[in-house]
Amino acid sequence: MPFTLHERLAADTLPVVDLDLCRVLLMKDRRYPWLILVPRREGLRDFDEVRPEDKHAFYEEIERVSEILREETAAEKMNVAALGNMVPQLHVHIIARFAHDAAWPGPVWGVGEAEPYGPGEAEALLGRLRERLGN
Amino acid sequence: MPFTLHERLAADTLPVVDLDLCRVLLMKDRRYPWLILVPRREGLRDFDEVRPEDKHAFYEEIERVSEILREETAAEKMNVAALGNMVPQLHVHIIARFAHDAAWPGPVWGVGEAEPYGPGEAEALLGRLRERLGN
Repeated sequence: MPFTLHERLAADTLPVVDLDLCRVLLMKDRRYPWLILVPRREGLRDFDEVRPEDKHAFYEEIERVSEILREETAAEKMNVAALGNMVPQLHVHIIARFAHDAAWPGPVWGVGEAEPYGPGEAEALLGRLRERLGN
Repeated sequence: MPFTLHERLAADTLPVVDLDLCRVLLMKDRRYPWLILVPRREGLRDFDEVRPEDKHAFYEEIERVSEILREETAAEKMNVAALGNMVPQLHVHIIARFAHDAAWPGPVWGVGEAEPYGPGEAEALLGRLRERLGN
């Protein structure tokens, strides 16, 4: 079955790159460097439902994206979460957190309104991420 | 180095069982069936910092605990998250969610006050979890 990104995820993000398993997305919210990984498989909802043959790639990609985002942003803490109460398609949030950010030390969800990136503003981060994650 | 559970985690939870890698804890909050996994290793903060020789157990235990908690509670959605902005010791939240719960569809953190279990109230769930997770 072909993979279709959930419309809410498509609307809220910019595409970064496709890894072997996951599509990597950047949230349109300049308050946090915030990536989302979506396994390109139909019908997954929960974190433990990834198929055995995909598990290695799934965890390796989470680790790699988390490490690279931390390094590129000098984050103080990484948040990794699969919630999916609103968007049922399995997606993993990987968020670089800072003691001065808008939600610290709480979680980022439901805090204020997303602040879109200005023209060209996300390009530097997108470029560095694509360079480091590109297959 | 011996493993010491962070005092905040110790205060907020009841012990369930020790798996090969992780200690499993039950949050003292009857609003949600809410487990926490803590790898019994010193010095870990972020999800991607688990040592290579522990990774298999780490992910396998997350999956197993999530599956069992879903089955035991008939949860509609599982939330899996490593945040750690307040408690730096690496710990993974595994939370059974329901469309009627106190925070749905938002995340559980920072919503209202924890409601402690009454006397004996957590014992049935603890007993079932220990039976299914016991080594």
